[in-house]
Amino acid sequence: MKTMINKVNREIPSYIEGYGEVKPYEGPYATKPVGRKYAPLKSFSKPGDSKLLSSIREAIEKCELKDGMTISFHHHLRNGDYVLNMVMDEIAALGIKNINLACSSLTTAHEPLIEHIRSGIVTGITTSGLRGEIAKEISKNNILGKPIIFRTHGGRARAIEAGDLKIDVAFIAAPACDRMGNMNGAEGKAAFGAMGYPMVDAQYADKVVAITDNLMPFPLKRISIPMTQVDYVVEVESIGDPELIATGATRMTKNPQELLIAEKASDVLIASGYIKNGFSFQAGSGGSSLAVCKYLKEYMKKNNIKGSFGAGGITSTMVELLEEGYFEALLDTQSFDSATADSLVKNPAHIEMSASMYANPHNKGCSAHQLDVMILSATEIDTDYNINSLTGSTGMIMGAIGGAPDTAAGAKLTVVVAPTMRKRIPIIIDRVTNVVTPGETIDVLVTERGICINPRRKDLIEAMELAGIKLKTIEELKEEVEKLTGVPEKTSYQDTIVAVIEYRDGTVIDVIKQVK
Amino acid sequence: MKTMINKVNREIPSYIEGYGEVKPYEGPYATKPVGRKYAPLKSFSKPGDSKLLSSIREAIEKCELKDGMTISFHHHLRNGDYVLNMVMDEIAALGIKNINLACSSLTTAHEPLIEHIRSGIVTGITTSGLRGEIAKEISKNNILGKPIIFRTHGGRARAIEAGDLKIDVAFIAAPACDRMGNMNGAEGKAAFGAMGYPMVDAQYADKVVAITDNLMPFPLKRISIPMTQVDYVVEVESIGDPELIATGATRMTKNPQELLIAEKASDVLIASGYIKNGFSFQAGSGGSSLAVCKYLKEYMKKNNIKGSFGAGGITSTMVELLEEGYFEALLDTQSFDSATADSLVKNPAHIEMSASMYANPHNKGCSAHQLDVMILSATEIDTDYNINSLTGSTGMIMGAIGGAPDTAAGAKLTVVVAPTMRKRIPIIIDRVTNVVTPGETIDVLVTERGICINPRRKDLIEAMELAGIKLKTIEELKEEVEKLTGVPEKTSYQDTIVAVIEYRDGTVIDVIKQVK
Repeated sequence: MKTMINKVNREIPSYIEGYGEVKPYEGPYATKPVGRKYAPLKSFSKPGDSKLLSSIREAIEKCELKDGMTISFHHHLRNGDYVLNMVMDEIAALGIKNINLACSSLTTAHEPLIEHIRSGIVTGITTSGLRGEIAKEISKNNILGKPIIFRTHGGRARAIEAGDLKIDVAFIAAPACDRMGNMNGAEGKAAFGAMGYPMVDAQYADKVVAITDNLMPFPLKRISIPMTQVDYVVEVESIGDPELIATGATRMTKNPQELLIAEKASDVLIASGYIKNGFSFQAGSGGSSLAVCKYLKEYMKKNNIKGSFGAGGITSTMVELLEEGYFEALLDTQSFDSATADSLVKNPAHIEMSASMYANPHNKGCSAHQLDVMILSATEIDTDYNINSLTGSTGMIMGAIGGAPDTAAGAKLTVVVAPTMRKRIPIIIDRVTNVVTPGETIDVLVTERGICINPRRKDLIEAMELAGIKLKTIEELKEEVEKLTGVPEKTSYQDTIVAVIEYRDGTVIDVIKQVK
Repeated sequence: MKTMINKVNREIPSYIEGYGEVKPYEGPYATKPVGRKYAPLKSFSKPGDSKLLSSIREAIEKCELKDGMTISFHHHLRNGDYVLNMVMDEIAALGIKNINLACSSLTTAHEPLIEHIRSGIVTGITTSGLRGEIAKEISKNNILGKPIIFRTHGGRARAIEAGDLKIDVAFIAAPACDRMGNMNGAEGKAAFGAMGYPMVDAQYADKVVAITDNLMPFPLKRISIPMTQVDYVVEVESIGDPELIATGATRMTKNPQELLIAEKASDVLIASGYIKNGFSFQAGSGGSSLAVCKYLKEYMKKNNIKGSFGAGGITSTMVELLEEGYFEALLDTQSFDSATADSLVKNPAHIEMSASMYANPHNKGCSAHQLDVMILSATEIDTDYNINSLTGSTGMIMGAIGGAPDTAAGAKLTVVVAPTMRKRIPIIIDRVTNVVTPGETIDVLVTERGICINPRRKDLIEAMELAGIKLKTIEELKEEVEKLTGVPEKTSYQDTIVAVIEYRDGTVIDVIKQVK
C-alpha cells in the first residue's frame, strides 16, 4: 500500500478502500479550490400542487429512495432526536439497503442504527461525531465494513457545496413548518433554535423532506429554509424531545478545577491584548470552555469593554452576555438549549447562520474567519500542539470534531482549555492518538498545572511575560504530569481503517484504525 | 427565415440573430425542466482578508471585468438609482466594451445608458421593463443592434438559476452593508426595502460587488444577502435617492374613473367567492389596481374576513392592511415606497423573499403559485384575453413585464383592471401589439364600461350571474368602444427584431419589431 506523510506527520495511504483517492493535509490554507460548485436539480411547481404527505413511508416512496443512495440528517435535536430513527426504521421496513448516511452528527439517540448497520441497511456514514455503542462497535468490530468519514461542520458544508458529498434525499426535522415547506427551528414544542446544518443540505439535495410536529399556517413568518427548496412535508406526532437538547457539556460548571482552568484562561486572554472593544469570541462546549465567559464578563464589566459578536454553537451563557449588552450580536448555527431558541426568535441581534456561513473555508467569507478569540476543549494534545477530540487514548472513537478545526484555523487566538489528566490518564502526550485540529492553528494550552504557548507565537509569549503570567513549555508540563500518571501504554491497532478524518478543506489529516 | 406559430398565435422565427434558438411558448406549464441548475464558482477565504475597496473602479479591476462580460444590476431604487450609472461610467472610462447588461429592470434614471449603447460599451440588455428615451431609441432606431431580452421577474430568476443568464459580475446597491458584505435593503439613508432580485444574482454570479453608502459594524444584524456570496464592498457617498422610489403608479388614486373600475373589480372579487378567510391577494401597481384594496378592505371589515397573505411588489397600501390586521403576512420581493421599507424592518409578519421564491416556476414552490387573487393592469387586451403591458399601440416599447405573467399563471383568479380607452385609443383590440401575458391565464377584464369574463371560466360567469353582475362579451365591449374611438390603424414595422419577449419558462411568447 502506497502511503504518504502529511503535514501533521501522519502516515496516510494514498488510496483508501471505501473512501477513494486521498489528498493529504498540507496546511490550513493550502487548498485553493478550482471550478464550480455542485448544481442542485432543476425543479418544477404549479398551482395546486400539494407537498403534504401522510407518512414518512410515503415520503420515502415519493422521493424514489433506492438502494445505494445518500440521505442526510441533522443533529440539532441532539440526544432528543426522533427523526433519524423514524426514517431509518421505515427504510428498513421497505427493504432498502446500502444507504449512505450523511449526518451533521450522531448522538446516543441514534443507537438503533447499530442494527441497521449490522443488517446492511446502512453501509456508509459521514458525521462530525460519534459516541457510545455505535462508536464502540465501529472502533472494535468495524461493523460498517467501510471507513466512516469524519468532517468538521465547515468541512461538511464545503463537501456538500463542492459535490464531494452528494445528497439524494435530505430529511429535516422542522419544529415549525407550513404546508409548502417553509420552516424554522425556533418555534414549536420541539424548538431547537438555529438550523444551520440543514440549510446547506436543503440547498443542494435532490429531494428535501420536512418532517414536522408543528404544521403552521402558510406562510410561515420566520423562514430559515424556504419552500423553494422543499419537496415534501410530513406531519408526525413528535420530532423529538427538546429537553434532551441541552447536555451537561453546555451547562455552567461548578467543578472547582474547571473553574480554575477557566480563570487562568481568562487571565491569558486579558494579557493577550485581544480583549478590547469590538473583539469577537467563541467558546466550544465543555465546562472550562463555557466558564471562561464568566471571568471574561467580569473583566469586560470592570473595563467597560463591549465585544462585537459571539459565535458558534450558542449557549444560554452567550445569550446572557448578549442580553446584558456585553456583545452586539450572536451568530448562531446551532443552539445548545431551549433558552437559546427563544432568544433567536425574540432578539434581532441573535442571527441565524448556515453551517457554510459559520465555517466553510470555500465560500466568500465565514464567521470562523472573523473570530478574534476561540476557546476549545480537547481530549489530548501533543507536543506539536495537535489536538484530538475524537478518539480516546484507547483508540476508541468517543467524541466529535465539531467546528474546532474550523474556528482554530480562523481565530486570531485559539486557546485550548483542558485538565492535565482525566482518570489518571495524561492529556499531554508525544503524539495524539488522532489529529483532529492541527497544532499550527493552536496558540495556547491552559491547564490547572500551567500554561503553555505554541513557540510559533513569540508575540504571545512576550505578552504573557509582560503581564507576569508564568509559562511552561509543553514538554515540561508533559513530564511533570507523567511523573504523577506514568507514561501511558501505546494502544495497538489492526491494519483496518475504520474512519478517515478529513480536514475542513477535504484533505485527510488522519485515519482511525480498528482497535485490537 | 424559418418561423413557427406559438400557442398565442404569434409567428416567431425558429432562430433569432443575437438571441439564438427559439423555444416557442406552448402553454403556461408546458415546459418541464430537466437536469441541473447552474453551479456558482467555488471560492476561498482566509482570516484577515479584506473585501473593502476604495472605489468602483478598483472593484471593476479586481473582478477582472473584461470585454464581452455580463454584469447585473437591480432596480429597487427605481428612478432614484445612482449605482448603474456610476458603474457604467467607470466601465466606459476604463475602455471596456461589449458589455451585456442583466438588469431586473431599467428606469428613466438610466438614460445615460443611451450614450454607452451608442459607443458600443453596452451591446446586450436583458430587463423586465424599458421606458422613456432608451426605449424610444431601441424601438425606432435599434441602437443596440441586437434584441433586448424581456423577462418576467420569475423568469429572470429562473434564467439565472438555469444558467441561461450567466452573470460574471453582479453590482448590488446595498443601503446597509458590513465590511464582509452582509447586506440588507431596508436600513440606511437609501433604504428601499426588500432586495428580492439581487438575492438571486448574488447566489449565482461569479463575482459580487456590494456598493453601499452605509457601512455598518460587522456583523450586520438583518442579513438579506450573506457574506458567503460577496467578493467586494465599495463605500460611496450615495447609492441613490430614495425619494424617487415611489412613483405615481404606487400611490392611492383619486381619479374617479380609476376608483369606479376598482369598485367594480371589488364587486367581481366578492361575487367570485374567492374573498373568504385565508384568501391570498396581490395587486400590481397602477391606480385602479391599488384602489381595489380600498373597496376590498371595506368588505373584509364588514364581513369579518381575514386574509392569509398579500404578496408582490409591496405598497404602503398593503402595509396598512397588514398593520390593521386584514392580512396575516406580506411576502415582499420589492418594496414600492419608504414606508414599506420601514415595515419590513419592524414587522416580523412582513417577510422578504427572493425573486425566485416570488415567481420562479422552476424551483420547488413560489409565492405566485399560492395566490388566490391577482389584480393586473394592462395597456392592451385582445379578444383572446392576451395582455400587453410592454409596448404601446404605436409599437413603441414603453412599459414592463414585471411579475404579471408569473402571477397570472399562478393565481386562481386573475383580474385585469383597465379603462376602455386612453387618449381615445381603445384598450380592447383584435390582437394586442405584443403578447406579454397569455389570455389563457387571464380570467376577468373590468373596465368602466363593463365586465368581461374569459369564456374558459364558466364557473365565474355563473357566479356573476348569481350575484346579479351584468357581463358583456369582450367582443361586444370592443365594438362599443370602437364606436367612440374608431378602429385604430395598424402600426407598420420593419423586419428587424429589436426585442424578444420570453415567457417565464424561457420560451418565446412574442418578438418586438423595429417601428417604421
